[in-house]
Formats: sequence, structure tokens, C-alpha cells
Amino acid sequence: MKATIERATLLKSLGHVQSVVERRNTIPILSNVLVEAREDGSIRLMATDLDLQVDESVPAQVSQAGATTVSAHTFFDIVRKLPEGSQVELSAAEGKMQVVAGRARFNLSTLPRDDFPVIAEGELPTRFELPAQTLRQIIDKTRFAISSEETRYYLMGIFLHVADEKLKAAATDGHRLARVTVDKPEGADGMPDVIVPKKCVGELRKLLDEVEGTVEVSLSPTKIRFGLGNAVLTSKLIDGTFPDYNRVIPTANDKLLKLDPKSFMAGVDRVSTIASEKTRAVKIALDRDKVTLSVTSPENGLAVEELAADYGSDGLEIGFNARYLMDILHEIEGDTVEVHLADAAAPTLLRENDKSSALYVLMPMRV
Amino acid sequence: MKATIERATLLKSLGHVQSVVERRNTIPILSNVLVEAREDGSIRLMATDLDLQVDESVPAQVSQAGATTVSAHTFFDIVRKLPEGSQVELSAAEGKMQVVAGRARFNLSTLPRDDFPVIAEGELPTRFELPAQTLRQIIDKTRFAISSEETRYYLMGIFLHVADEKLKAAATDGHRLARVTVDKPEGADGMPDVIVPKKCVGELRKLLDEVEGTVEVSLSPTKIRFGLGNAVLTSKLIDGTFPDYNRVIPTANDKLLKLDPKSFMAGVDRVSTIASEKTRAVKIALDRDKVTLSVTSPENGLAVEELAADYGSDGLEIGFNARYLMDILHEIEGDTVEVHLADAAAPTLLRENDKSSALYVLMPMRV
Repeated sequence: MKATIERATLLKSLGHVQSVVERRNTIPILSNVLVEAREDGSIRLMATDLDLQVDESVPAQVSQAGATTVSAHTFFDIVRKLPEGSQVELSAAEGKMQVVAGRARFNLSTLPRDDFPVIAEGELPTRFELPAQTLRQIIDKTRFAISSEETRYYLMGIFLHVADEKLKAAATDGHRLARVTVDKPEGADGMPDVIVPKKCVGELRKLLDEVEGTVEVSLSPTKIRFGLGNAVLTSKLIDGTFPDYNRVIPTANDKLLKLDPKSFMAGVDRVSTIASEKTRAVKIALDRDKVTLSVTSPENGLAVEELAADYGSDGLEIGFNARYLMDILHEIEGDTVEVHLADAAAPTLLRENDKSSALYVLMPMRV
Repeated sequence: MKATIERATLLKSLGHVQSVVERRNTIPILSNVLVEAREDGSIRLMATDLDLQVDESVPAQVSQAGATTVSAHTFFDIVRKLPEGSQVELSAAEGKMQVVAGRARFNLSTLPRDDFPVIAEGELPTRFELPAQTLRQIIDKTRFAISSEETRYYLMGIFLHVADEKLKAAATDGHRLARVTVDKPEGADGMPDVIVPKKCVGELRKLLDEVEGTVEVSLSPTKIRFGLGNAVLTSKLIDGTFPDYNRVIPTANDKLLKLDPKSFMAGVDRVSTIASEKTRAVKIALDRDKVTLSVTSPENGLAVEELAADYGSDGLEIGFNARYLMDILHEIEGDTVEVHLADAAAPTLLRENDKSSALYVLMPMRV
């Protein structure tokens, strides 16, 4: 292997792939990145944790094709520290990969290319395209609700499925639910229900920062692949059944509160300052066109804030986890949020309006 | 107590004092800040950890003088979250302090003002003034060398003393030494040798970011006080004897290497990428007008970089801790650093030139 590549190009691409590599690995080759110089004038970089793999190709001058694997984080750190604008020469021989730039030279330990594990994609019969912007929105408006509880592994991802001629994405941790509904893309018919793991969601979101245009999505019941320009992200799917979340979306909540989501969020943030770390419960008292937020803490005292609001139903007091409520309000883009309530013990529905693609359900807390 | 103050003024000042308060305290009142509204139209804020105390006064409209204490971090977080530009009303009654701004109201638990501990300064016979700029320089060029080893508590601060008609500041952790020499200010004659604790140095440095002009320094053998505009920082001094550091400053190192500190630092940073976390040793091989930096790591491989340099003595190989070397090079401001060497086992002297106020000594490592 012998190739020359611009530092900036190499750094950007290594940044993408190294982020998949875990800091601690019991299997040594999982710490490594595959570096493959190809005769078509490209370098392919690839990293995996056995569940998730990123594969990216970037232009390079290749004088001798070949491949090896080196420590992903070390290689990334080296390239990061090379002078801006430098040309990086890569060559592999005798179990070492040499990196030369200017007057600096590195001989890095390698592991054989043939030992590098590749996720077998198998057949990915469902294929469709999504605008990068839509995919970013799906992720941003649902990922905060993904569970982190290992015992409920089937909640540790975003549930993607087709229903009512729409593509739907949902995430829940049992306390809150977020769902985004978008137009069903061409090719999504007959798509299996899948749960995309949290880590895949995180890496995908990072890659989406730099992508415009469309993303190619291909999937089977066990694997999903995202094609984003030069990069391909492949992930195993969570092998489990996502609960029927439609049952927790309330349809008969008859009390409607409307207010400015930014003032609402700022108010909740302020009063929750004195909440104890554990519960972070905020009480919301509703009266005709008035909301009173309050938090009582045995150690710290009392916090109260009044907000102007549009509310015409009977008075009601309800409690929420301040953090969860703020997570949702943070994703509301317009000037108004609709809060549909039933009573102090019932799931509450939040959304921008009846046309918005995103919908949130929040379980109340006793206060 | 009843007073009104601008949020921005209160926030800035609370930011200064709350930073002294430890996150965990076994003595409850140490979590609190003293808030004292005074008839002269000011609010005094004060926090302490019993060793270090910050006392700051800011203008306010006071309609009723009085004082109380409330949780410093909670009060700071509340004020931080209040809307920009708001007026904050403070009042204390019946064991609570009320904070009102706009439509938000907080009733905070208090502890009695009389229980708040104040550091008794006693007599501070030595008094002098230092330009804020000089004090910033003294701190920046020495603090990185302060020891963190509890067993050598007398090294856990900056040693300030007068010698040779100069004011000298030194810090060492046994592996490296940093010393800054400045003109002796008027009033420093007969000053006792003192060791200013690390935490005091850190808080002082933060306050210095916002101060121009001069700082008033007053001290006794056990206490030091820094007067910076509205703020007064008082600290106990470390009760110990700083070692006679002059003995480790080499005077007969006969090999002189001169090079650009920025390229030197960047090169050390690059080759040390592959160094093992523990030792981080970089080998420096000197030849006529050439420096070769190298690191060998059993796991990662080899890194080599050559640098142009001005060197005319016999060849020499010497090893240093890369982190320590970079810490020093980071503080060299000019285009050249002088490295005075003797042999591979002897302390090495670094400085900008023979006129520079700062001087560094670095112990070599076996490589």
C-alpha cells in the first residue's frame, strides 16, 4: 500500500469512522480502523463495533493498492495534530503502517486486514430515499425519549414503521413518548417494523450534519444501511418487539392549554432550579387564562412563576418531571404549544398544532 | 432586608463568590452566601470555605438594611436563569429570603447571618501594590508547576518571597520548577516568605480577568489579602517551609540549544501521540543544528520528527515528560526558547533569554 492524501480530507473522514470505535475493547482489532488504498484513486476507511459499521471512501493519489488496520484513535489523533494543509503519505510494509507528513514520521503497529470483521449485510429488500433534512428532524424530535434501561432493550432505539400510509418514528422510555410522522417514501411499502439502536442514531445524526440532498435507506428485518454521499453506515437492528405505543396516545383529553413554548420552558427551568436532584417535579396549576408553575423543596424553599396562557376549562393541578417537559418544549418550533390534558393522573399530549408532524406524550407525576 | 439590584450586576458578583463554595459541605452554612444590604446603597456578597473568602460589594437600591445567608449555588442558578435586563428584588423575613423578578418568585431557606464564619485577618503588616497584568503573569507562568500531592502540602501553592531586591514567585512539584522574578514593589521590604494555596491562586486568577490597574496585596506570615476593585479575596497561607529551590536551578549547563518554541511544542505534541498514557516520555536527540524528537511505544510503534535548531555542542540524547515540556513551552512568548543542557541525567534550564522574567527547570527522564 502506498498513497498520498490531503490532511483535511483524511481528518474529516477519520473523524467520522473513529467515533464508532469504543475506547475500551476486549478484541484488539475492534480498536483499529481499516485503511484500504484502492486503484480507483480512493482510500477507504472503515470502523466497526460489530453492531455498527461506518465505511467511507475519500479521494487520494494511490500508487500502490493495499490495505491494513491501525489503531483508530491514535491514527486520528496523529492526523489531527499534523500541520494544516499538509500532504500525508501512507504506506504499509512488514507489519507497520508508515505515516509521513513534512518532517514527521510515524510507524504504527498494525493488525492484518483479513482479521477485520465486516458486518454481513445480507439482503436488504426495502429501499427508499429520505431527504437529509427529514431524517435530521425525525432524529432530533424523538431521540431524547429513547430509554437507557438495559432491561428494556427493545426501548433503546427509535422504532421505525409504516402505518396509515405514513412513515412513523417513535421513541419512549415509559415516562414520555415522542412520535414523528412523515410522508411514506416510495419503496417503503411492505417495510418490516424495525428498532434502530441509540448508538446508530447518534452516529447517523453526526454524519447528517454534513449532508444535504437525500439519504438512501435500505433495510431488512435485522439490518439497516444508510447511504450518505461517501459514507455508508450499517447497523444491526434491535431484536425485539416495540410495544404498541398507540395505546398510550390519549385521544379524549378535553382540556386544552395553549401558550408560548419558550416562556413555558424558561419558566419551568427557573422554578425547577430549587427542585431536588432526584424528582425534579414541577407543579402546574391551571386557571382561566393563567398558568402557575411551582416547585416546593424541603431543603431549598419555594419557587413560583405565573405565565399568561390561553385556557378555558376547569381548574386543574398536575405535576411533571421538569427535565422531561423541557426536553419536549425544546423541540416545539412555533410560537404556540398545545397541551391536551384530561386529569392529574392521565397521560398528557403535547404538540405544536394538529398539523405538526411531531407529537409528544408525557406521563404526569404526583406532586 | 429589602433591596433592588440589576440582574447583570448581581449575577457577575455572585459568579465570583459562589465559585469559592465547595459542592459538598459537611457544615451547612459553608454552602451559603452571605447577602447583606447596606444603608450606603450596596449589597455585600461573601462566601468562604474557611481557608479562602471572597467579599464583594455591588451598588443596589436599599430600602431596608439587613443580612441573611442562602445557598450560594441555588441563588446563583436562579439569578442566571432570570430574564436578561430584569430588576431583582431581595427581601428577608421569617427565616426566608424572597427573590422576585418579573412574574417569578422564590422563597429560599436561610441560615442566620450571625453563624456565618468570617476569616479573622488579624494584622497584615506588609502592604504593596502590583499591576494586575504583573500578577496575571506571575500566576500564568508558575501555576502549572504547583504540586497536587497532599503528602507534600508545602508544594501545593505558589511560593512568594523577596530576595536579591526582587519579588520572586516559584512553584515546583519535584519534576519541574517555574520561577518568575519581578521588580520589588514599594512596601514589600521585610515581607515574610509565604506559600499561597492553589485554590486561592485559581480564584484570584479568575477575578484578575476582569481587573485592570493595580491590585492591593496585604499579608502577614499566616494570611494574605488581595484587594481588586469591589472584591476582596482573603486566604490562609500554607503553614510549611518551601524548599530552597535555588539549589536545583543549574548554573553550569554548558550546552545551549535554541529553537522556535511553537514548532518545538507542536513536534513534541505530535510524536507524543503514540506515547503510553503512563510515561509520556519523548526522546530528544541533539546534533549540530538539528533536533530529532522521537517516541517508541511497545503497543503503538514509533514516531519521529526532525526540527531545525541552533545547536553547536556535542551530540546528546535526553528524555523528558512530554506534558511537562509542553506546559513550559506554552508559556514562552517569544520566537526563541533557550534550552540549557548538561547531560542526560541533569536538570535542564529553559527560558526565553537571559532577560526574561520567567525561568523553568525540568528534570529529565530515562528513555
